Amino acid sequence: MPADHGKQFTLYCHGGPNPWKVAIVLEALCLPYKLINVDSSTQEHKKKPYTDLNPNGRMPTLIDHSNNDFVIWESGAIILYLVGKYDKEHKISFEEFEQTSTANQYLMFQMSGQGPYFGQAVWFNRYHGEKIPSAIDRYNNEVLRVLSVLEDILKDKEWLVGGKCSYADISFLPWNGLLGWMSGFDGWQEKFPKVAAWDARMNELDSVKKMKAAKEALANH
Amino acid sequence: MPADHGKQFTLYCHGGPNPWKVAIVLEALCLPYKLINVDSSTQEHKKKPYTDLNPNGRMPTLIDHSNNDFVIWESGAIILYLVGKYDKEHKISFEEFEQTSTANQYLMFQMSGQGPYFGQAVWFNRYHGEKIPSAIDRYNNEVLRVLSVLEDILKDKEWLVGGKCSYADISFLPWNGLLGWMSGFDGWQEKFPKVAAWDARMNELDSVKKMKAAKEALANH
Repeated sequence: MPADHGKQFTLYCHGGPNPWKVAIVLEALCLPYKLINVDSSTQEHKKKPYTDLNPNGRMPTLIDHSNNDFVIWESGAIILYLVGKYDKEHKISFEEFEQTSTANQYLMFQMSGQGPYFGQAVWFNRYHGEKIPSAIDRYNNEVLRVLSVLEDILKDKEWLVGGKCSYADISFLPWNGLLGWMSGFDGWQEKFPKVAAWDARMNELDSVKKMKAAKEALANH
Repeated sequence: MPADHGKQFTLYCHGGPNPWKVAIVLEALCLPYKLINVDSSTQEHKKKPYTDLNPNGRMPTLIDHSNNDFVIWESGAIILYLVGKYDKEHKISFEEFEQTSTANQYLMFQMSGQGPYFGQAVWFNRYHGEKIPSAIDRYNNEVLRVLSVLEDILKDKEWLVGGKCSYADISFLPWNGLLGWMSGFDGWQEKFPKVAAWDARMNELDSVKKMKAAKEALANH
């Protein structure tokens, strides 16, 4: 996979939330990357050559051209790769093993809890062929449950681990950003004020602003 | 949290698949643990004192009594903690960073892909208040899709990473074990022979046999 764009990384993305977790991490670590949009409307993510990189046919996939074109997929694993290899100063990660383990706990909660359940809520609210109230209720309730767990975790702290914004916090931002677009969650900020304040703090980060600018530039391309 | 049972670890579990990934890892690393069953029929997992350990109210949670009663939840994060701290000989993990990263990729695929989708298939097939054919189809198709991705990944190898059974492989075993119990998957072994052979190889491991014996002993207690 040649990198004729000259950047260190290629990040394959689409409009969904998961690639943007990785883009925030790349921005936070000042690592140069080229975004490539894979057209899901024509099922390009389910076909070669994309599936040669990622047999799961999902986004994102990252190629590190500075490491023999190393290919890795699953946003959570890409994040662990990037901080493990390129965050030697621990800007968004931790030196201590126990803090790293707790950050991984929250990253896994994002990957197995927030992402899949928010995703199913979006599906049954917006895309499923028929309106199924009991399925919509199931997943909307699960979204509220995940938010209430986060509210409890954040009750006496500003960041999930170690008093600083880490990859664990960042991983939750893109899916939280869909709450305003999903139906049934008007006023979530009042119900979950700690989560809302945490989300607002993250939206003020330079890395997040740069990710949003890169996303917008790609959309307008 | 006192460990009056005298074992190094306490592992909180229930009948669901996720705690048993961790039990296999503990067995593979010859680490002594006490299983504590949390009664989900009386919602004990949603109440204190369990939610003081794990505010997400899910299984498993691990306490490491040899490390200041360090508490960690989310099966994928527990696995990374155990191999990071106790698998210095790399029996089921890797020394090389890139191999570790690829193992993490598959672990994340298990956590975000196999587990949630198999779980939703079980829910709509067995537990949802009404039969919703379009929801059952959605998740049964997703189970088949995950199996086809694994079949493709395993087409020319016996194990996911580095020619040996690692924590990445192990993580898939407990949910695969539910296929025979879920409806709609009769004959899956013929459709996905590489996955079936991989699953059979794992079921022959001492660590897996010991996990099953521990699970059975707990159920008969």
